[in-house]
Amino acid sequence: MIQVTRRYRFSASHRLHAPQLSEELNREIYGKCNHPFGHGHNYILEVTVGGAIGGDGRVVDPRRLDCLVEQEVIQRLDHRSLNADVPEFSELVPTTENLAVVIAGRLDACWKQMFPGGGPRIEKIRLEETGNNSFELKLSKL
Amino acid sequence: MIQVTRRYRFSASHRLHAPQLSEELNREIYGKCNHPFGHGHNYILEVTVGGAIGGDGRVVDPRRLDCLVEQEVIQRLDHRSLNADVPEFSELVPTTENLAVVIAGRLDACWKQMFPGGGPRIEKIRLEETGNNSFELKLSKL
Amino acid sequence: MIQVTRRYRFSASHRLHAPQLSEELNREIYGKCNHPFGHGHNYILEVTVGGAIGGDGRVVDPRRLDCLVEQEVIQRLDHRSLNADVPEFSELVPTTENLAVVIAGRLDACWKQMFPGGGPRIEKIRLEETGNNSFELKLSKL
Amino acid sequence: MIQVTRRYRFSASHRLHAPQLSEELNREIYGKCNHPFGHGHNYILEVTVGGAIGGDGRVVDPRRLDCLVEQEVIQRLDHRSLNADVPEFSELVPTTENLAVVIAGRLDACWKQMFPGGGPRIEKIRLEETGNNSFELKLSKL
Amino acid sequence: MIQVTRRYRFSASHRLHAPQLSEELNREIYGKCNHPFGHGHNYILEVTVGGAIGGDGRVVDPRRLDCLVEQEVIQRLDHRSLNADVPEFSELVPTTENLAVVIAGRLDACWKQMFPGGGPRIEKIRLEETGNNSFELKLSKL
Amino acid sequence: MIQVTRRYRFSASHRLHAPQLSEELNREIYGKCNHPFGHGHNYILEVTVGGAIGGDGRVVDPRRLDCLVEQEVIQRLDHRSLNADVPEFSELVPTTENLAVVIAGRLDACWKQMFPGGGPRIEKIRLEETGNNSFELKLSKL
Repeated sequence: MIQVTRRYRFSASHRLHAPQLSEELNREIYGKCNHPFGHGHNYILEVTVGGAIGGDGRVVDPRRLDCLVEQEVIQRLDHRSLNADVPEFSELVPTTENLAVVIAGRLDACWKQMFPGGGPRIEKIRLEETGNNSFELKLSKL
Repeated sequence: MIQVTRRYRFSASHRLHAPQLSEELNREIYGKCNHPFGHGHNYILEVTVGGAIGGDGRVVDPRRLDCLVEQEVIQRLDHRSLNADVPEFSELVPTTENLAVVIAGRLDACWKQMFPGGGPRIEKIRLEETGNNSFELKLSKL
Repeated sequence: MIQVTRRYRFSASHRLHAPQLSEELNREIYGKCNHPFGHGHNYILEVTVGGAIGGDGRVVDPRRLDCLVEQEVIQRLDHRSLNADVPEFSELVPTTENLAVVIAGRLDACWKQMFPGGGPRIEKIRLEETGNNSFELKLSKL
Repeated sequence: MIQVTRRYRFSASHRLHAPQLSEELNREIYGKCNHPFGHGHNYILEVTVGGAIGGDGRVVDPRRLDCLVEQEVIQRLDHRSLNADVPEFSELVPTTENLAVVIAGRLDACWKQMFPGGGPRIEKIRLEETGNNSFELKLSKL
Repeated sequence: MIQVTRRYRFSASHRLHAPQLSEELNREIYGKCNHPFGHGHNYILEVTVGGAIGGDGRVVDPRRLDCLVEQEVIQRLDHRSLNADVPEFSELVPTTENLAVVIAGRLDACWKQMFPGGGPRIEKIRLEETGNNSFELKLSKL
Repeated sequence: MIQVTRRYRFSASHRLHAPQLSEELNREIYGKCNHPFGHGHNYILEVTVGGAIGGDGRVVDPRRLDCLVEQEVIQRLDHRSLNADVPEFSELVPTTENLAVVIAGRLDACWKQMFPGGGPRIEKIRLEETGNNSFELKLSKL
């Protein structure tokens, strides 16, 4: 059993604002992340797949993972506003915690369709918002 | 003569869109950077000051530069939308080229007030939009 | 359950020297790290907090963690000599292993006072001494 | 219990090609990694040793680990062709998954001879092929 | 006038060997870089274009530069052996100095065809062989 | 003409304190860098050599530069206290500006003895004190 981690990048904007709370409370809770017109980040996404080494000497053909991340993450989030462009965040606050859960859920659902009979598994994702904060989610805990 | 470079970070969003051009032409010119609701980056700013080494063994007290960048750059741009929050970009397209010129102009004007009789000079700034593209501006060329 | 990791920096000096051992044995065991007047590093500290995502979309308000690390780590260690300025190392050799244990102990004790009824937990810390060596400590193992 | 991780570097070339398969199938499976004359990478190897902190304030004398990695990894792989110079890959495809297993096996066997009565253990290795893909192997799973 | 720098990556293998010299002299001059079956690197290429900011707020449409580098550098060098796959090195030793000159020459020639009437210029390239050595070439000095 | 840059690392401690000034003034000028028992850094030194590409395809045999830096910089500064162990700083404040001048002077003097008839030149050095501040010195300005 070995883990393969591949790294991807996308740039997006977001504003942390909980619609059910008052303007004042939002400012207090989220501070500068609540500024009305939003801000943005260069996100780094790392996806870790674990499994046995197959006959080709690899855990998984990396093109399959790249393809999935391109379609499910990059196409939908890159150069987008998380609040305005991504349906999952029409109600949900686009914190990086929530973003990690959304990404993990989409990747995992598609992955299981690609490998219906078992095989390599997406074990965790790690999402970096800036060089100083990152978020890690084990998929067995979803 | 020696050059001191200090590094700063801010996160902002922007949309590349030239108001004088048609929607279609904007999409063609700016591609995904023209997406209507914008996107964002973790910008890295490096400011280089050159000068002689003074009696204290330094070119400049670093707190003076940090203070200036905090007031003129971080306070105005960090966690902001360049298009909506920064007056300079009410008409001007907020490309990183233009952002570099705006930042350099503000820093240089204030610096010259701080050192009216000469002394260390801001020689260049370098602005990184992502790990894969950056912009450098020599201030003597402003 | 998700893990949030935040990164902090401090610069300190240390000398590896066990007072109970002879000069010669100290030189043999610690090599160049035993040089009499010490040396120093830019340490990087990563603190990982794990927990459930709360109603605000976050595991913890990052300002609470930043505040704690500022008070318990940065104020006490940054721009200091570990041997001469930090009481814990008056007897204890300031290896980075021991430094990790000291930092983890202080952070964990304060954290538990901040969240007396449970909630997010500090799960691990990682301390980088140079780009080529680092130390990781799970707090459940303290 | 604490984990110490040390980082090493080597540069090598390889070609992904399974001799038991046809030329065509090799090209299909490995894509550009199958180009006939090979290509290469700057590999980064991280070795993680876990154990209790000893009387000298350390888990292990770092010189012992450095020495082992120098002899078992750097001397044998650095500035070499994995396919042509490394006996383990005379038959085995030199994917980074297989390379990680080979390195882990050699390090672990020697380590156990160095510490026959127990003590610190090599717990995992992580091998980076490029900045965008890496491989991690826990030694308890060998 | 402002400079835009864009970063690209490719992986290749090479062997330093001057055919006009004896085996022994080659080993003496190039050391481990002369090992018979070659080794490889993850090269990083930075291309710097300088010019005035145009009406679109940019020095150059980045897609034009990306396209050129893809066609002239990545397609020809990535996942290749410099010695065996790249005609320029059939006689010439593929040191990174020589590689920089070859890349700069090709980029510059094509660029001048793309901008026959003047405009932005490729001013320098920087080529990183490992994290610890890099090579910079100003194109005005070609 | 091409420039080759090689990167080296050393760890040292220092205290910024000008003996000719009062305690109070030292504290005011140098702030936390004046703490009585010092602190330390992981310094990064980059040395840039420029010249023509020779018959061996290189500007300089890199072993010659590595050897010089090992002898003149690493052996004298690594794991040392700049104030207590380095004669040049018995009177001089060990700011990184002054450290750059000291290093550049020593390297340049030895280099000129190694290449008495001209040839490749050390053109600049760059010294990084932390990831956020660095110092660059052109040797023609010494």
